[in-house]
Amino acid sequence: MRVSCNKEINMELTLTAHACDVVIFGAKGDLSCRKLLPALYKLEKAGHIHLDTRIIGVGRAAWDKDIYKTVVRKSLDTFLEEKVDDILWLRLSTRLYFCDLDVHDTHNFINLAKIIDQKKNINIYYLAMPPTTFGAIFKGLYTSGLNKKTSRIVMEKPLGTDLQSSRLINNELAKFFDESQVYRIDHYLGKETVLNLMALRFANSLFANNWDNSIIDYVQITVAEEVGIEGRWGYFDSVGQMRDMVQNHLLQILTIIAMSPPSDLSSDRIRDEKVKVLRAMRRIDSSNVRDTTVRGQYTSGIIQGKKVPGYLEEKGANKNSHTETFVSIRVDIDNCRWTGVPFYLCTGKRMSYKYSEVVLFFKNPLINLFTESCKNLPRNKLRIRLHSDAGIQIEILHKMPGIENKYRLQTTTLDLKILDICHQANLPDAYERLLLEIMRGIQVLFVRRDEVEEAWKWVDSIEEAWSTDNEYPQPYEAGTWGPRASYRMIPKE
Amino acid sequence: MRVSCNKEINMELTLTAHACDVVIFGAKGDLSCRKLLPALYKLEKAGHIHLDTRIIGVGRAAWDKDIYKTVVRKSLDTFLEEKVDDILWLRLSTRLYFCDLDVHDTHNFINLAKIIDQKKNINIYYLAMPPTTFGAIFKGLYTSGLNKKTSRIVMEKPLGTDLQSSRLINNELAKFFDESQVYRIDHYLGKETVLNLMALRFANSLFANNWDNSIIDYVQITVAEEVGIEGRWGYFDSVGQMRDMVQNHLLQILTIIAMSPPSDLSSDRIRDEKVKVLRAMRRIDSSNVRDTTVRGQYTSGIIQGKKVPGYLEEKGANKNSHTETFVSIRVDIDNCRWTGVPFYLCTGKRMSYKYSEVVLFFKNPLINLFTESCKNLPRNKLRIRLHSDAGIQIEILHKMPGIENKYRLQTTTLDLKILDICHQANLPDAYERLLLEIMRGIQVLFVRRDEVEEAWKWVDSIEEAWSTDNEYPQPYEAGTWGPRASYRMIPKE
Repeated sequence: MRVSCNKEINMELTLTAHACDVVIFGAKGDLSCRKLLPALYKLEKAGHIHLDTRIIGVGRAAWDKDIYKTVVRKSLDTFLEEKVDDILWLRLSTRLYFCDLDVHDTHNFINLAKIIDQKKNINIYYLAMPPTTFGAIFKGLYTSGLNKKTSRIVMEKPLGTDLQSSRLINNELAKFFDESQVYRIDHYLGKETVLNLMALRFANSLFANNWDNSIIDYVQITVAEEVGIEGRWGYFDSVGQMRDMVQNHLLQILTIIAMSPPSDLSSDRIRDEKVKVLRAMRRIDSSNVRDTTVRGQYTSGIIQGKKVPGYLEEKGANKNSHTETFVSIRVDIDNCRWTGVPFYLCTGKRMSYKYSEVVLFFKNPLINLFTESCKNLPRNKLRIRLHSDAGIQIEILHKMPGIENKYRLQTTTLDLKILDICHQANLPDAYERLLLEIMRGIQVLFVRRDEVEEAWKWVDSIEEAWSTDNEYPQPYEAGTWGPRASYRMIPKE
Repeated sequence: MRVSCNKEINMELTLTAHACDVVIFGAKGDLSCRKLLPALYKLEKAGHIHLDTRIIGVGRAAWDKDIYKTVVRKSLDTFLEEKVDDILWLRLSTRLYFCDLDVHDTHNFINLAKIIDQKKNINIYYLAMPPTTFGAIFKGLYTSGLNKKTSRIVMEKPLGTDLQSSRLINNELAKFFDESQVYRIDHYLGKETVLNLMALRFANSLFANNWDNSIIDYVQITVAEEVGIEGRWGYFDSVGQMRDMVQNHLLQILTIIAMSPPSDLSSDRIRDEKVKVLRAMRRIDSSNVRDTTVRGQYTSGIIQGKKVPGYLEEKGANKNSHTETFVSIRVDIDNCRWTGVPFYLCTGKRMSYKYSEVVLFFKNPLINLFTESCKNLPRNKLRIRLHSDAGIQIEILHKMPGIENKYRLQTTTLDLKILDICHQANLPDAYERLLLEIMRGIQVLFVRRDEVEEAWKWVDSIEEAWSTDNEYPQPYEAGTWGPRASYRMIPKE
C-alpha cells in the first residue's frame, strides 16, 4: 500500500477551500438529508464555500435541477435547527445540480461527466451509499475518466465488516485512486472535543511531559448511548456493537489518547503515530478473551422514566440473536509509553443516559504521607467530556479547612466547560468541519487505509474468539450501565 | 544544637490538648488583645480547650483576677468579629488569672510560681513581649523552678535582627530550655492556605511526581501589602522589609514549596527538609547582589482612590532613611531538584492591593506542534492564592472551538475557591490553630532554631552586600507594583 500525500494541493489549500464539484452519491438518502445538506448550508453561511463550488446530487430519480432544489429545500426546512435564510438559500441553491444515475450501469457515468467541470474544479465524490455499491462507483468514475489525480473520494462507514471485506473495498479503490485522494469518514474525528484532545495533550506541559506509565495508572474511554436500535435491527444485528462502535469511534479516540507526539501536525505524521498504537495493541484471542472482554445484550427496562423493550423484543428482531449491544474491553498497549497501563473501552446501547468521556486515572504519589487520616488516597483524575457538555475536569486533593491536627483531605473538581468559555451555544458540527477539510484537501481527520485495516485485524481476532466461545453476551437491563461482569473487570473507582 | 522531639508528650497529645496553664507575658499588649484572646475565645467555642486549662495574664499592673476579666472582656468586645456569647464567656472567664510582674525582677517570678500548677498542668509561657525581655524571662522562670521538661516556651518575632542577635536569644533560651520545648511563631505557618500547600504537593500525583526542574520553569512568591508603616516607623526603619517579611514569611513559604518530601509528617522530619532548602540557597553577596535583588522605597501615591504619603513623609520619619519597603529577590536553589529554576520572591508595602500567592510556571512542551498558529505557547501555570480569596488556579491551553483548519489555542483557567467548596464564610485564624498546636505539643508549625539561623545567615549576607553598595533603594510610587528594575529581573509573564 502506498501512503503518500498530495503535497502541492495540500499546501495550496491550507487556508481556503478550492472551487469544487461536490458530488453526493445517495443524494436522496438519510445521511445526505440529515447531515450533509445542513452542513453545506452552514458552511455557506460561514462563507467557507468557494464562489464557483457546485453541489451535484446523484441518485435514481427522474429529477431535474429544479426538482432537486425543492427536495433540498425541504430537507433543510426539516433538519436544520435554524430557519433557512432566503439570501443564503439563493446562494446555495444556485450551486445545486442533479444527475439521475444507476451506479451499477458503468456507461451511465458519462451523464455525470457532462455535468462535472474537471478543468477548473476539484471533484469530490461523496459516497453516501452502502459499501456494496462502492466497487461499481469506482469503476464508473474511472471508465468515464472522472478519476483525475486531483479528484477526491469520500467514504462513509461501514468500510467492510472485517479485515477481508475492508480490504476488498480498499483494493477496488486502489485500482483507480491513490490513497492521497481518499477521505474515509469517522465523524468522531470531526468532533470539536476530539480535536481538542490534541491541543490538551501537546500544548500543555503539565500533561505533555507525563502522558505515560510513569504517572498514569489506567484510562477509561466510554461511549454510552441511550438509544437502542432505532429501527435498523437487521443491519445492527449483522454487525453488533463491536464493529459498529469499537472498531471505529472508540479505537480512534484510543489512538489519539495513546499516540506519541508526531513530528508535526500534518496528516500522515499524525496517522503514522496512530497506526503505531494500533499495532502495539495486545492481540485478544481465545486464550484471553474471557479475561479482557465482556459482552452484553440489553433486556427491557426503564430509561428516563419510560419503559423500553429489550433487544430481542425490538421490531424485526430474531429472538435467537446473540449479537452484543454492549462491549467492554481491557486493552493493553505493549510499548514503552503504556506498558502496565490498561485502557478500558466501554460502549453500549440503552444505557442510563448518553455520554462519552475519557478519564485518565493518575497513579498515587510514591509515598502516602497522609496515612493517618487517609489510608487510600483517592487518585487524581483528568476527565475529558467528549459530549455536548464538553469540557475538562481535574480532580485533585486538598486539605479541608479546619484546625484538626490531622490533614483531612477532600477531593475537589476543577471544572472547565468549553461552551462557557467560548460563549457559543453550540459547538460546530462534525460534518461541517469534515466537508470543509475535504474541500481544503486536508486528510488529517480521515482514516488512512492502514489504520482501518489494523483496527479490523485486532477486532477480527476478538470476534473470532467470541464466535468459538460457548458463552453468549450477558443480559443487562436497559437503563443500567451494562452487565455486572463489566464492573468486575474495571477497577472500582 | 540539639534537635530532638519530646516524643511521649507529642504522642499523648496528638488528638486533644492537655490541661495547660497558658501564661501570657505581655497580657496588656496589642498582640494579646488583638490576636491571642480572640483566638482563645474561638477555641473555647469549638470545645478545643481542656476543662482544667487556665489562662494567666502577666504584666505590670496592680490588677486582680476580676479587673483582668474586665480588661479581657473589653478586648473581646473590641476585637472579636462576633458578639461575645454569655455562656462561653462564663466558661472562658473562670479560666482567667492575673500576675503583676516586672520580668526584670527575677525574684518576682515566685508570685507566678504560686499561681501556676506545675503538677497537673502543662505550663505554656507565651512571650508576647519585645525580645529584649526574653533573657530576663528565661532566667526568672528558671530561678523559680518554672522550667520543667514539660513546659513550653512560645516566642513571637522578631527573633533577633540578624544571625548574631538571634543566636544570642537562642543561646539564652538553650541554657534553661530544650529545643523540644520551644515554639517560635511565624503566623504564616498557621495559615490554612499554607498548610494546604502540603496537601497539594504531596497528595496529588499530578503535582507530586513532577515538582522539580524537569517540568517547572520558575516560581514566583509574592506577598504584596497595601498598608504602609501603620504608626511604627521607628521600629520598621530599623529592620526594613527584608528582615520584617522575607527572613520569616517568604522564606517559610519558599521552603514549603521547595522542600523534598519528608519521610513522614512529624515536626522534625518536615523541618529537616525545610532546613535543607535554606542550606541549598545560593549565597547572595556583593558579587551578585545587584543582579539578584531590587530594593525600593515608596513615595506618595494613590491607593484605592485615596492619596497616601511617601515613606519619608510618614509620621516620625527620618528624611534621610534608606530603609527598603520593597524587595524582590531571585533565589537559586543549588540542589538536584531545583537547579535552573529561579524562585522570585517579591514583597512590598503600599502596593496596588493586598495579595499573596505562589505561582509555578511550567516549562513549555519539548516541541511546539502549534507553531503555525502560536509561535510562543503560553506556559501552564499553577497559581496558589494564599490570601483571603484562597484557592488554586490551573491555567491550561485548549483549542478554541471553530472550523478553522489551524489550531487556535486559548488559555483557560480552572479555578477552585477554597471557601466555596468548604461552605465556610471564613478560614480558621492562624493564631487559633497555632495556640491549639502549642497546647497539643506539636511543633511542626513552629520554626526550629536551625531554620531561623540558616535564614538569618542568608539574609545577613544580602544586608551586608546592600550596606556596602553605593546604590540605595529605588523610589516607587505608592499604589504601583514596585520599582521598574524589579519587572526587568522577573520574566515577562
